[in-house]
Amino acid sequence: MDITLTQTTNRQWVDLVEEYSHKSEPIINIHREDTRKFDAIFIGGGAGGRFGSGYLRAMGGRQLIIDRWPFLGGSCPHQACVPHHLFSEAARELDLMRWFSGKLWFPDATNLRASILQMVELFKSGRGTAHAFMNWQSKEQLDLEYILNASATVIDAHTVEAAGERFYADNLVLGIGAAPLSPDISGVGLHGVYNYSTFIEELDFEPQRCVVIGGSKTGIEYSSFFQATGCPTTLVARKPLMRTSGLHHVDEDLRTYVVDGMRKRGLTIIEGHEPVEIRGDSEGHVKEVVIRDMSTGEQQVLPCDFVFLATGERPRSEHFQQVLGVAVGEKGEILVDKHMRTSVPNIYAIGDLVGSPMEMFKARKSGVTAARNIMGEESELDWTNYPDFLHSTYEISWVGLSEEEAKQHFENVIIIQMPPKGVPLADIPLPCAEGTMLYAFMYPELSGFLKAVVDGDTRKVLGFHHVGFGAKDAFQYLDYLLRRPEGLTIDEMGNMNELFLNPEHFIQLCRLRAGSPNLRDL
Amino acid sequence: MDITLTQTTNRQWVDLVEEYSHKSEPIINIHREDTRKFDAIFIGGGAGGRFGSGYLRAMGGRQLIIDRWPFLGGSCPHQACVPHHLFSEAARELDLMRWFSGKLWFPDATNLRASILQMVELFKSGRGTAHAFMNWQSKEQLDLEYILNASATVIDAHTVEAAGERFYADNLVLGIGAAPLSPDISGVGLHGVYNYSTFIEELDFEPQRCVVIGGSKTGIEYSSFFQATGCPTTLVARKPLMRTSGLHHVDEDLRTYVVDGMRKRGLTIIEGHEPVEIRGDSEGHVKEVVIRDMSTGEQQVLPCDFVFLATGERPRSEHFQQVLGVAVGEKGEILVDKHMRTSVPNIYAIGDLVGSPMEMFKARKSGVTAARNIMGEESELDWTNYPDFLHSTYEISWVGLSEEEAKQHFENVIIIQMPPKGVPLADIPLPCAEGTMLYAFMYPELSGFLKAVVDGDTRKVLGFHHVGFGAKDAFQYLDYLLRRPEGLTIDEMGNMNELFLNPEHFIQLCRLRAGSPNLRDL
Repeated sequence: MDITLTQTTNRQWVDLVEEYSHKSEPIINIHREDTRKFDAIFIGGGAGGRFGSGYLRAMGGRQLIIDRWPFLGGSCPHQACVPHHLFSEAARELDLMRWFSGKLWFPDATNLRASILQMVELFKSGRGTAHAFMNWQSKEQLDLEYILNASATVIDAHTVEAAGERFYADNLVLGIGAAPLSPDISGVGLHGVYNYSTFIEELDFEPQRCVVIGGSKTGIEYSSFFQATGCPTTLVARKPLMRTSGLHHVDEDLRTYVVDGMRKRGLTIIEGHEPVEIRGDSEGHVKEVVIRDMSTGEQQVLPCDFVFLATGERPRSEHFQQVLGVAVGEKGEILVDKHMRTSVPNIYAIGDLVGSPMEMFKARKSGVTAARNIMGEESELDWTNYPDFLHSTYEISWVGLSEEEAKQHFENVIIIQMPPKGVPLADIPLPCAEGTMLYAFMYPELSGFLKAVVDGDTRKVLGFHHVGFGAKDAFQYLDYLLRRPEGLTIDEMGNMNELFLNPEHFIQLCRLRAGSPNLRDL
Repeated sequence: MDITLTQTTNRQWVDLVEEYSHKSEPIINIHREDTRKFDAIFIGGGAGGRFGSGYLRAMGGRQLIIDRWPFLGGSCPHQACVPHHLFSEAARELDLMRWFSGKLWFPDATNLRASILQMVELFKSGRGTAHAFMNWQSKEQLDLEYILNASATVIDAHTVEAAGERFYADNLVLGIGAAPLSPDISGVGLHGVYNYSTFIEELDFEPQRCVVIGGSKTGIEYSSFFQATGCPTTLVARKPLMRTSGLHHVDEDLRTYVVDGMRKRGLTIIEGHEPVEIRGDSEGHVKEVVIRDMSTGEQQVLPCDFVFLATGERPRSEHFQQVLGVAVGEKGEILVDKHMRTSVPNIYAIGDLVGSPMEMFKARKSGVTAARNIMGEESELDWTNYPDFLHSTYEISWVGLSEEEAKQHFENVIIIQMPPKGVPLADIPLPCAEGTMLYAFMYPELSGFLKAVVDGDTRKVLGFHHVGFGAKDAFQYLDYLLRRPEGLTIDEMGNMNELFLNPEHFIQLCRLRAGSPNLRDL
């Protein structure tokens, strides 16, 4: 179907995407009257490809996106970030209802059980509006060209075939993401075993007892959700939670608050163990997981009817490695420089396809970086340091150095935290603000944790760490402020205008110390 | 009681504050061994006095706080900001339960009624921990001197009497805040009529039908809460909501989204009316409010058993005007310059006592400004422009110019907003993130609104506006970034690292346009 000359509304796009998800015909939006060669063909219209295309087009270039799905935006609104956020919000609300069971206006939650299956159905019934919006915005507002619902076959570094046609470009930008990685054990193919992708697409029963394998962000987030629904959940991880190599700058006090909080919610956490085997019943449905203590070798059996694999992802680089010969690293990631250039001239790679961190900021900014360089504007991207977050039933965000890291590098590290060191959590309902007020007045120990790490000599803030609600958005700007060449001093912080009650109390706590030439802990 | 040499824990403070709230004996914490004269006596230990004292002490000075209450922190944790935040969070949760009544895991909410009285009791049972913490932190961490539970009598510009003793200082800092202002109509003394202060201290029945008088922030916030509990509520305001003189830079699209949202929740909003009389029954309990259309003069009667007055506050300046002769403005505010100096040498005034805006950032920073100047460090405070917020069942935040204001001052104003202009709210579940995910998938039109206002010529962002959840904290830093002499460009925004899904989409939306030399709306 060629929609180039049609003004398709968001509502129409919802139906169109649904219709085309059941057939193989492509959706084509190409400016045939434009005789220019494409500056770049983006293979994959996920976060990286879409933002890269948007930027390249805005700079005046010509681009084409080819995507196998009938929508732009990639896995985020389809299977990854968006459903996890929906489920994490459900977890937060369910958690509140459990703590407040029978109190105030809250009903008795003793037998509260939320349907996991229903939540998946809710997500699937609504994801079409996000797909529709990406298609609409990309065409009507961003003026992008694209072919959807079509696989791209790379012929050479300048030629791609899709929808039965060959397209030519000065450059190719590869951005088809990563696929969930299964552990190398038997039983992963049993009914009842899912990863984040098949969980959305294929779940067809109501889980009663869950085992999550893998202590990744995904493992922490999904196990918190499953447990919050009322489905007894066990999380099995090789390493202590939040000490995996994928997470950097995790402060130990923050980690303790988060992991203790997960245990308080009844989640069973088994660290230092790896999966040995998943076993099924006579009908091919999972019945238990065998795990092994990595130090003693001792095995134990975890009965369950539902297994969620959160054991990472592998970039989908094979095709490009074979056809184009791009160099690929140990974990399947396409190797790129800071310009997002691969080992092959005129071939760029972006997003999850170039490896960790598989985060949105990197996907989008790597697409933009490729676009700029293609359009002749020298541009580098460094994603080795970045603000990070995850969800348990809380929002957890951090940026900069942890206390431990700071103390390795600086002699005079000042810690400003709430509750203060040595004061019992239950004695102080702070930080309290949007999202923690009810906790603050009934269960102060559940109201969160925050820490700022400061270099007492230069007075510069080195890191911020927060557990609670409502502060994540702020960490985007705190990251920017810390990252400036001049950094961010406690004095500048103290001079800002807080919107009180603010979820994190960094500004006002900094102000309480900023008057002193010799900084001290708070 | 002299507690100077005692290490009182937070838990002990809770009991102590409770005990002393029932008697008139002072709580004394003074370093008798210190023979220096006080650099300043702070009359009032609320936000301004406490932060001013903390700063002055940190700078090496000597201060004394005298407060009539047995705790520091003032009205915020006792009657004002903290309870409103608790109630606003309750409103948000109740609202969610109503929209999701009988769906997913939510119970049928048809007859859901939350007890207003019980919420007040919950607040009162918990506020002691905040009081305790202020006392503890001020003594143990900030090394402040104070006399609590004692009234201060000003003798002259250097002498204050409290707890039967005279104290001498080089300067006085006045910061005893403001008191709720009643409309000049009959019936305000009836049982069942409250302001924000008496509502906390004196409510003794369960309201069944509510009238809120006054379209102030407090009026909007409390009426949203009352309606959310299930108590049918009518809000009476002289001017269209959010167009009062107390609120600046309110964007019209944001205003429409908020006010329409309040109406959607069943709140009755009567604008352009003023109260005429509150009438009681034979037992002296309120039974109705008479209001008048300010343009036609037509009257109507609103039956109710509960009236909440949200008609502003008046600075408590009388005593100081009489004793010290400080100059006072039309609304009772003590007049100060940017150094927080009153008309009388060595007398400073801070916080709500100097008038609008009665916001936390101003209270605290005015205290700090007074402290700096007293300690000989030239310091000015300008609070004419600031980031602002209020709550309905949403969090609403804004900073900088509205679209209308920008268009008055700039020729090439670019608007980046979500949902985009012309697209129906229900077609796009954005902004969606923490707190709006459930809405996004069931009622996308409830998931919020955002707008960035940009000067297309300089590429500088002029204003940010947001309705939803979780973005308020970020506005503190957006305010700082906009306020810098160099401002904040759309290009800098687009280069930041977002934590996706972020509650506001400013970074990524800016990035989608930043590639172009000629900016356009999005």
